[in-house]
This record gives sequence, C-alpha cells and structure tokens, in this order.
Amino acid sequence: MSAAYDENNIFGKILRGEIPAHKVYEDDDTLAFMDVMPQAEGHVLVVPKAASRNILDADPATLGPLIAVVQKVAIAAQDAFDADGVTIMQFNEAPAGQSVFHLHFHVIPRREGAPLRPHSGKMEDGAVLAANAEKIREVL
Amino acid sequence: MSAAYDENNIFGKILRGEIPAHKVYEDDDTLAFMDVMPQAEGHVLVVPKAASRNILDADPATLGPLIAVVQKVAIAAQDAFDADGVTIMQFNEAPAGQSVFHLHFHVIPRREGAPLRPHSGKMEDGAVLAANAEKIREVL
Repeated sequence: MSAAYDENNIFGKILRGEIPAHKVYEDDDTLAFMDVMPQAEGHVLVVPKAASRNILDADPATLGPLIAVVQKVAIAAQDAFDADGVTIMQFNEAPAGQSVFHLHFHVIPRREGAPLRPHSGKMEDGAVLAANAEKIREVL
Repeated sequence: MSAAYDENNIFGKILRGEIPAHKVYEDDDTLAFMDVMPQAEGHVLVVPKAASRNILDADPATLGPLIAVVQKVAIAAQDAFDADGVTIMQFNEAPAGQSVFHLHFHVIPRREGAPLRPHSGKMEDGAVLAANAEKIREVL
C-alpha cells in the first residue's frame, strides 16, 4: 500500500550531511536532531540511518535500537526542559500525519496546561534550536 | 520525576485477567487489545506485560519486543481496515496525554480526511469492538 522509499526526503539529506541539523545524539544506527518546526520547546526527531519510508515498511531489526534511543532522548528532554511529561508520536503516511517520508519518532517535552502547537510551518530561530540541542546533549 | 507504578491501573487488571478485553495479539512479553474509547475504527493498544508506568521508567529490555508488536499490529490494522495510514502515539504522564499509568502504545488506523476523534470517554459498543478485534486477528 505504501509507495517506495525516496532518498530525496529532507531526513535522508540530513543523514547524508547534505543539509545541516541541530544534532542531539548519534550512533551507528540512529540520529536524533531538533525539529525545525517544534510543537513545543525541545521537540526532537529520532530517525534510523537505515532507509525506510515509515514503520509499515521498516526492517524489524531497525526498531529495537531506534526505540532505545527514543527512550534515552525522552528522558533527557524531560530533564533538560524540566518538563511535566513527554508525548511521543510516529506517523505513517500522509493521512496519519506524516509529512517527511523517512521513518521518524517525534519526542516532545510537555508542560501542564500547554497544548501542542500546530505543525504550522513556522520555522524556529536557529540560535534557539542550537541552544535547545545543547541543553539535551548536556544531560544525555 | 515520575510517581511509582501502581498495579491497580486498568491495563494491569486486564493483564491479570481481572477484567476482560478484546484481545488481538498476545505473546510472552506483550498484549494488544482494542481501545474501548477508539479515536478511529480499529484503535488498538499495545502494552508490555512487564510493569512500568510509561517509557520514562521502563526497563530498556522491554522496548524491543514491544515495538516489534507495535509494528505487526500497525501493519495488520492498516490491512484489516483498508486504512490509508496509521498514527502511533505514546504518552508519558498526564500533561503529555497519559490517562492510564501502564506503558502503552496507541495504534490508530487512519483514513484520508478523517480527523482523530477526541478521547472523549464515549465507550464503543462491545460487539463492534469484538468484530474489529476479529478483523485484525484474521490478518495477523
């Protein structure tokens, strides 16, 4: 049902170093970096280096290492932003909310009474993203 | 930062067989069953049998087997309901959307143009849930 993986997606370009990102964590299998249109302060994306469109076509072997990093980043982001909780979301295909077609998890620190901002297309200031990435790296 | 695990949560009761659920999958580590307040047709919850409040306090060893079942259920639910995509969500603490304090993933088949229903407290009819569970079991 899914279309094929297209390597010309923005996360593929980040993984190949063709465009920059505010990285918070990297290992052999996984990269984590700041979402440039954060739905809350400290919104991180965690992606596998292996190519898949989303969880529906992913090699199952990709998922264990990936969710381990999602957990690490969630704990670190909660700590770094003194958040009250963490929302994790993973969208598969456009009707489910997916807009970049390389498998990714959203990790979003949450505060009591603060609804998620819409994924509006408003880019966060680069200096803010750099500072927030540094806050998370410090506690990872 | 999190409170301790309290075994008197509703998913703990389901895991102990104290209250019923419309099960779609079970193995040594994991149980998947229909959400009784579905945000879309075919909304499944996937929970580890190991006790943890959410992903923030989970034993990392729990997560690999759990996400493997999330993937299986997502693929099966998309197939069973001929859905256009699947939204996966995992909430940690009340300000992040968590209302039952046993680690769980939401797996929600999505259709083009159909927004998620709010998690309103409206219970779905048991016969509908039983039929939907059977649809997913048939393709698992």
